[in-house]
Amino acid sequence: MAKYRKEDLTSFALGTTLTIELLKKRPDLARRLYISPAQRKDETYEKLVHLARAIPIPVIENNVKIFKELSEKENVMAIGEFEKKEAKLDSKENHVVLVHPSNQGNIGTILRACAGFSILNVAMIKPCGDVFDPKTVRSSMGALFNLNVQLFSSFEDYQNEYGNRTLHPFMLQAKDSLVDCQKNEPYSLIFGNEARGLDPEFLSIGKPLIIPQSGLIDSLNLDNAVSIALYEFNK
Amino acid sequence: MAKYRKEDLTSFALGTTLTIELLKKRPDLARRLYISPAQRKDETYEKLVHLARAIPIPVIENNVKIFKELSEKENVMAIGEFEKKEAKLDSKENHVVLVHPSNQGNIGTILRACAGFSILNVAMIKPCGDVFDPKTVRSSMGALFNLNVQLFSSFEDYQNEYGNRTLHPFMLQAKDSLVDCQKNEPYSLIFGNEARGLDPEFLSIGKPLIIPQSGLIDSLNLDNAVSIALYEFNK
Repeated sequence: MAKYRKEDLTSFALGTTLTIELLKKRPDLARRLYISPAQRKDETYEKLVHLARAIPIPVIENNVKIFKELSEKENVMAIGEFEKKEAKLDSKENHVVLVHPSNQGNIGTILRACAGFSILNVAMIKPCGDVFDPKTVRSSMGALFNLNVQLFSSFEDYQNEYGNRTLHPFMLQAKDSLVDCQKNEPYSLIFGNEARGLDPEFLSIGKPLIIPQSGLIDSLNLDNAVSIALYEFNK
Repeated sequence: MAKYRKEDLTSFALGTTLTIELLKKRPDLARRLYISPAQRKDETYEKLVHLARAIPIPVIENNVKIFKELSEKENVMAIGEFEKKEAKLDSKENHVVLVHPSNQGNIGTILRACAGFSILNVAMIKPCGDVFDPKTVRSSMGALFNLNVQLFSSFEDYQNEYGNRTLHPFMLQAKDSLVDCQKNEPYSLIFGNEARGLDPEFLSIGKPLIIPQSGLIDSLNLDNAVSIALYEFNK
């Protein structure tokens, strides 16, 4: 993806399905609709143009270059350009907090699971992967457009603003099991980096939990761990 | 990975950690140990050589080409070559059944979760991704070496051989929820392809289950769905 850089003010939803999600769910962020000259003038085309004109945003149908630059191999027929804008978290709702997640694909999959289990407020602690990268948007399957995502410079910053709730760091060193934990809302489910997990000092924050697992593996994949926690807390 | 092809009789564990897993857990399958000339003669080196000689298998230290071919960008210092060999499932144990999974990385992550929740018998229904591909081995974090993986030409073949158990197809069309399902061992947890899920005829097989999820997403990521089911059944 030569065209997109982390420091850009806008990013892109690649493909008709994702672009329709963007135009429907976040018309306030949508800036331009690009349609490939190869796109047939079918129902999907009509839907895209209709949504864009209702906002309204420009519809650009002759920019072959942007399709080449953003989607080398894939058969992308529509691109939605949108403003990258952080949201404020809702302090009354439950949160997922990702501390230094690095993998764009993982972040997208986690956002998808969050939307799937109705957690619509996600904090990310920097440094972290780019939540607006077209790859993240793609792997979130558009879930990004359903969520409030707020970035923080440190976990302390998050805690100062939203810490008055039940904090559950997920750690292999924790003593209490997810299986029989108390669920007191609002809560925050906190997860560390893919490779390193959370630092040991999180053991003294809130109520740390472990997902019971066999000794055959070092740990679960990050997005699997998040999904399991979301499932259990959503029950 | 120019060097590896699906039709080859052997595959490769890339990296010292994975290679040590191979040599320890499946010495019967290990065929050759390659050590990069760039590997220092440290404790890891001694361990690798010691394990290989105990089997015994040849230790090859001057094959720069295989490192170039199998690990272009990455800093791989050891490669374990192993025989690709299907196992027979244990009919008394619980199974995970993957119907036409296609993504090598996903398959590896699922194997890792299976090992993490002590499900050591995995059926794969063809056509499916290559469970022995070095990418799958890598994303399984070596869990492949803890598992029995058996391939079947059709789900009927699996059912004929191992069907006398509680079958749980996971489907969005199922009426019963995973949350309050009965767990009768031995069971098989059955999952469809990443994009298509299971065909509707699975609704009449065993006791289909749904993982409750919001209407904001079409479905969970396959490996997340498998992990959640494994977690719930492992409780």
